[in-house]
Amino acid sequence: MIKKIEGGVTAAKGFKAAGIYAGIKKKRKDMALVYSVVPAKGAGTFTTNVVKAAPVKWDIKLNNESKMIQAVVLNSGVANACTGSEGEINNQKMAEAVSNALSIPVNAVYTASTGVIGKRLPMDAILTGVPQLVNALDDTPKAGSLAAEAIMTTDTYAKECAVRFIVDGMEVTLGGMAKGSGMIHPNMATMLGVVTTDLAISKELLQEALSENVKHTFNMISVDRDTSTNDSLFILANGLAGNKEITEKNDAYTMFCEALNIVLTDLAKKMAADGEGATKLLEVQVLGAKTEEEAKVLSKSIITSNLVKTAVFGNDANWGRILCAMGYSGVTFDPGLVDLYVESSYGKLKLVENGMATDYSEEFATKILSASEVKAIADLKSGDRSATAWGCDLTYDYVKINADYRS
Amino acid sequence: MIKKIEGGVTAAKGFKAAGIYAGIKKKRKDMALVYSVVPAKGAGTFTTNVVKAAPVKWDIKLNNESKMIQAVVLNSGVANACTGSEGEINNQKMAEAVSNALSIPVNAVYTASTGVIGKRLPMDAILTGVPQLVNALDDTPKAGSLAAEAIMTTDTYAKECAVRFIVDGMEVTLGGMAKGSGMIHPNMATMLGVVTTDLAISKELLQEALSENVKHTFNMISVDRDTSTNDSLFILANGLAGNKEITEKNDAYTMFCEALNIVLTDLAKKMAADGEGATKLLEVQVLGAKTEEEAKVLSKSIITSNLVKTAVFGNDANWGRILCAMGYSGVTFDPGLVDLYVESSYGKLKLVENGMATDYSEEFATKILSASEVKAIADLKSGDRSATAWGCDLTYDYVKINADYRS
Repeated sequence: MIKKIEGGVTAAKGFKAAGIYAGIKKKRKDMALVYSVVPAKGAGTFTTNVVKAAPVKWDIKLNNESKMIQAVVLNSGVANACTGSEGEINNQKMAEAVSNALSIPVNAVYTASTGVIGKRLPMDAILTGVPQLVNALDDTPKAGSLAAEAIMTTDTYAKECAVRFIVDGMEVTLGGMAKGSGMIHPNMATMLGVVTTDLAISKELLQEALSENVKHTFNMISVDRDTSTNDSLFILANGLAGNKEITEKNDAYTMFCEALNIVLTDLAKKMAADGEGATKLLEVQVLGAKTEEEAKVLSKSIITSNLVKTAVFGNDANWGRILCAMGYSGVTFDPGLVDLYVESSYGKLKLVENGMATDYSEEFATKILSASEVKAIADLKSGDRSATAWGCDLTYDYVKINADYRS
Repeated sequence: MIKKIEGGVTAAKGFKAAGIYAGIKKKRKDMALVYSVVPAKGAGTFTTNVVKAAPVKWDIKLNNESKMIQAVVLNSGVANACTGSEGEINNQKMAEAVSNALSIPVNAVYTASTGVIGKRLPMDAILTGVPQLVNALDDTPKAGSLAAEAIMTTDTYAKECAVRFIVDGMEVTLGGMAKGSGMIHPNMATMLGVVTTDLAISKELLQEALSENVKHTFNMISVDRDTSTNDSLFILANGLAGNKEITEKNDAYTMFCEALNIVLTDLAKKMAADGEGATKLLEVQVLGAKTEEEAKVLSKSIITSNLVKTAVFGNDANWGRILCAMGYSGVTFDPGLVDLYVESSYGKLKLVENGMATDYSEEFATKILSASEVKAIADLKSGDRSATAWGCDLTYDYVKINADYRS
């Protein structure tokens, strides 16, 4: 049994965190640190964007070479992307500062940055910030929340989630934080996410569990179809739960994957719901597809259509746009078989049967769409595979936020 | 020499047009007819969306089977897409009405619809409208403009273009109209376009010229990444110019392709500039690519990024978003080689050199971006291939228009 609990990156045994204002941004918190009191297995997934930020290059190298990870340092405000070799040197200096302050090897420190592309890291602020972060480290839920807050950019709330389950009779905790909001169309991972667990597991299986899981969670959300240069999702497993280290795909591994799925789905949905300017979460289920891949492509095509997103903002059941988005997705299907539903806390309504409008009530459809969480379900009736994607509506505020992001 | 002239679909010899209010929409003109006084060679390109509107299915069949075309009937307000077999019957009735009123074969009548998906054609209005259209047919520039006006949906102005050139000592005219605005991400052709010419040319070469040309014109624009269910671009060539029929790729064919390129580029740019809610035209040139295909993919990736589009709306030279959009396009390139410029009537400015910011003036960059036509140029410095794409900014009005399109 997996139980949701309060908390985030500090929920699991032996993890401390901190979030502070270091002076990178104008006013809000801008640096975070996650620290395991003992060396942990680390794994990560990173952006597939050809343009990779300096921290992403560092992390990919670490991921291949480092046996143990003990800290993740993150900053918001400046992305340290498109900053050339100076950017890479600055990133290394940030990692070294953490390494020195915590007396751990520099190659045990993951780094992550998020914010404006092309600007250089303000090294004075960073280097002053690191010792402050280390001083502030704490294992309380509050410390985890401060870290979650410090990685926010245009997010409107901090995103955390934690679960607890039993392995070998030992209590295992898994918790995480993430930030999203803009440039969200993850391809391997989203902007920034850190998950911690006290589970004992091999590095290989930790990486495999993470890589598999993001395909159904972080990689199934989109705010604006823009895959960031900085996408990074980290997981640290320090083994303090005391279970026998998982080294094969046994029941304990399955339970861990399930727990990870709960945490990552929760964080992914929170990122989608808090997409820049969003007023509601849009969940799209595609059912009855021939393959899972086709169901995924179709659901992501719907979730990313500006026309669907604006219709959802306007509470307008303009279902033709959903069928249109399916039609240009690249997947071949029979439009004449498609059934389409909308659903929310207000009820469920079949809008389309066999590709044509049912005699539905526009008024009720609008009512359903006016909820803060809205679901669209497309049934292809051509197979038994399905997929779910999450996104949000496209609003005036998205335009406002992004027309003057830097000012 | 190819000369731009006033006019549109009625510019070429022997073409008449009309645009009327038939009662499909609430107030504005909603039906158009283009007619050649003699049978013409016809060619067309149509949407690649799996969900194809009834008129598109009809046209594709005609395109394969009919030797000669003599009319194109178009309506706005209702797309006649996702309307099942009844939609196909209604479409055929519309074609039959035109066939009867003009005493021409029904398979010489292309049809096109644009508007809300899923609604049935109001056949009373259509069948009353057709004889009115035929009565109103005229070969004046005014008649061409009325037709261009009648196919508009959220367009803010009618889109026409015409050119004149000499083949075999005979004066040849080529003119066209198009409508765009929303659901604009053509893949083969855009929403609706009709081009007419009095050139004598074989059907095969007419189709080839059109199919080749749209790759560099209509298929290189995007307003919202949504490929419509109704995209159709037609060309009619009635031979009345009196030139020797073009049956091979000779100099006359080359001149025709050049003329066609001018007309289609002009209409494509007008559609991009008049994208829903747009305040400016964004042109993106990618230079120095290894292949033309890569240059195309890169330029379209930039033009379709919501983050780039909102930055352009905000006159914000947030060039990181351009590099980011190139990075996730799927094309492999060296970000460390990229130079980036912005240009408009106010001047030209290099923002990025070898992947990093130059010491440019933000103030001047903002000034450049405040023009109504803005160009971004990315030079990969890795080859000699290039491509150009056209789009527009993403504004509050795009959201407004699409949040309540149907109301």
